[in-house]
Amino acid sequence: MKSPVSLTRPVRTGDAPRRISILGATGSVGTSTVDVILGRPGAFEVEAVTAGTRAAELAEIAIRLKARIAVVADPSCHGALVEALAGTGIAAAAGEAALIEAAARPVDLVVAAIVGAAGLAPTMAAIEAGSDIALANKECLVCAGSLFLGRAEAAGVHVLPVDSEHNAIFQALEAENMPAVRSITITASGGPFRSWTREAMQRASVAEALNHPRWSMGPKITIDSATMMNKGLEVIEAHHLFGLDADRLEVVVHPQSVVHGWITYADGSILAQLGAADMRIPIAHCLAWPRRYATETKPFDLVSIGTLTFEKPDLERFPALALARGALSGGDRATNILNAANEVAVDAFLKGGIGFLDIAACVAETLDRLAGGSGLPDIDSVAAALAVDGEGRRVARAVLGGRRALRTG
Amino acid sequence: MKSPVSLTRPVRTGDAPRRISILGATGSVGTSTVDVILGRPGAFEVEAVTAGTRAAELAEIAIRLKARIAVVADPSCHGALVEALAGTGIAAAAGEAALIEAAARPVDLVVAAIVGAAGLAPTMAAIEAGSDIALANKECLVCAGSLFLGRAEAAGVHVLPVDSEHNAIFQALEAENMPAVRSITITASGGPFRSWTREAMQRASVAEALNHPRWSMGPKITIDSATMMNKGLEVIEAHHLFGLDADRLEVVVHPQSVVHGWITYADGSILAQLGAADMRIPIAHCLAWPRRYATETKPFDLVSIGTLTFEKPDLERFPALALARGALSGGDRATNILNAANEVAVDAFLKGGIGFLDIAACVAETLDRLAGGSGLPDIDSVAAALAVDGEGRRVARAVLGGRRALRTG
Repeated sequence: MKSPVSLTRPVRTGDAPRRISILGATGSVGTSTVDVILGRPGAFEVEAVTAGTRAAELAEIAIRLKARIAVVADPSCHGALVEALAGTGIAAAAGEAALIEAAARPVDLVVAAIVGAAGLAPTMAAIEAGSDIALANKECLVCAGSLFLGRAEAAGVHVLPVDSEHNAIFQALEAENMPAVRSITITASGGPFRSWTREAMQRASVAEALNHPRWSMGPKITIDSATMMNKGLEVIEAHHLFGLDADRLEVVVHPQSVVHGWITYADGSILAQLGAADMRIPIAHCLAWPRRYATETKPFDLVSIGTLTFEKPDLERFPALALARGALSGGDRATNILNAANEVAVDAFLKGGIGFLDIAACVAETLDRLAGGSGLPDIDSVAAALAVDGEGRRVARAVLGGRRALRTG
Repeated sequence: MKSPVSLTRPVRTGDAPRRISILGATGSVGTSTVDVILGRPGAFEVEAVTAGTRAAELAEIAIRLKARIAVVADPSCHGALVEALAGTGIAAAAGEAALIEAAARPVDLVVAAIVGAAGLAPTMAAIEAGSDIALANKECLVCAGSLFLGRAEAAGVHVLPVDSEHNAIFQALEAENMPAVRSITITASGGPFRSWTREAMQRASVAEALNHPRWSMGPKITIDSATMMNKGLEVIEAHHLFGLDADRLEVVVHPQSVVHGWITYADGSILAQLGAADMRIPIAHCLAWPRRYATETKPFDLVSIGTLTFEKPDLERFPALALARGALSGGDRATNILNAANEVAVDAFLKGGIGFLDIAACVAETLDRLAGGSGLPDIDSVAAALAVDGEGRRVARAVLGGRRALRTG
């Protein structure tokens, strides 16, 4: 087992404020990060905050955090951002180039919380600038894992996992005992359809799929939880972060979402991380690591919860999990295509264009059509990763077009 | 929170065999230790093994482990030991002085697994010799905690907790984040009488009290589990090992005995250790620490177990837990008396002399009679600890004598 990048270099742990940037500041992880930072006055200095389109919310966050610069990716939102920041002394910018420039400002830690493949280029820019990364964007690993971690290692930066399951493993991991890790288990709540039949799932509405029983997250990742593709993407993520092969990465359904993950060591001991389903907990862990400090979180008491249950995932009803494992064995190009097709299919589902089970079916068909990968580049650059991603999306759209035609006809 | 002695000094982690002695080799922890050592040929060299009376078993263990010396505490067993070891080249000795001399032979690690206050003097001798201690004898901490850990600190030795709950905490503890520990929780199976009424408990037979649902242990500690005095002693033990006040040491009843203990950090994260109810796991952890290696243990799979439950202990039906917390607030002399009275009362129960609930009643009455401690020495030496212990036993016997007279009359 190779060392994860996150454990190779000591970090600064003095009492000087840590300099932080937040990519994707208006999303679910972003706003939780804002909460954690505001909860510890004086501990952080915020350099850059970025968002996709929500200029007004971004400006408010920039003002509350006293950031130096705010960047909105969509150029058409530039005016609104400039106006909202007028007189604050906070710089405003817009567009892809400005986003990457902001990500590349050297700080102690960049919270990479942009959703989807769009997070790849700015997060890579942060790495090249030598900033440590608190990684919430799993697509960096799913779309370009070897490239991403290779660059991180070359730049000597830490990559700290924000995803609650991977953060749990990170917390339970003894750096000196990685050779004694027998397996890593990440838990899944099972989502809103844990006990639904396939027939009921195919008829499920968007609202039903968005009704997650435990976590409050953005729409894309909430649908991924309902299909369990999220857990599949997390297995891929865990493979890269912790250097284990797929057969030592396990998924267990745990509806209470109390135990987020555990490590089984060769000596029979299991170390687990538990806590409320509150993203402020893993975020605070990354922001303080290797120290810990008091964080305001949801109340938690194991006796009040009373009962924890654990069950095997059902791969028949949740084929996305098997698709992700299959893609993992196919390498970075396959997992990139898996992700691209899934983003297209989830978007179509959210817009009411396809049924719930069509999401996984679209991903499977896209992977089939692109099997072998003829004409697709190796993922040795961000451009190559985005090219494969683009081809995955194109084929997925074609798959969905055919499907809709088929249904209508 | 002060540092536990166990984390203050790096240990030798090379590949040379670790030199080990086992005090109490024929008991439950002792034989599990023998198992762990035999499971890893070449990793250990055994110096001394000791037992109370069981000369034949001790000789067999000494031969299997290729120990240098075997010592039986009871001088009347000397002949049997000499005979059993004739021609093996293993030295045989008997008596208290020989036991202490064997414990004082400098090794890398002494497994201190003698049951009861009898373990205090030899374990202290091992500390004075500069050997690290894998501590299974909780009475060293209950009867003389401040003295014991003060000597360990002065000698610069590690004290590694073998008790499964304390070992769990030790595994989950991040040395650099002790100031961020909010509380420590140790679990209790609840023992055989978890759901019994007080009336049924008072009528319980010795066989029923010895029928522990989860752990296979010696008779004294099994009865302590049934009264939950064991958990009370463990709270005292945890206070000394981890430097937390009683209000931050919690006990939760967890009938499946899968989660052995957890640490709640101030950032909302909980780190827990889980595993089969198999003492070879914590023993192997201590023998390998700070490394880990493969150990043969009971099979364990959380999905097969399926459900874990957690509940508050019932202090009405299990008054021993409250007695122990009360004694902890009274200092080392009170916890010493608690332990002495409990040993006398458990012995009387095992011999059929008193009812099950009389155990806690005897401890309570003994503590009352000795409250204030007039005439009792401060526990600043092993002799003082044993003097207080002796007085506790004397008063407990008087209490039991009165009780029997009362009942008969």
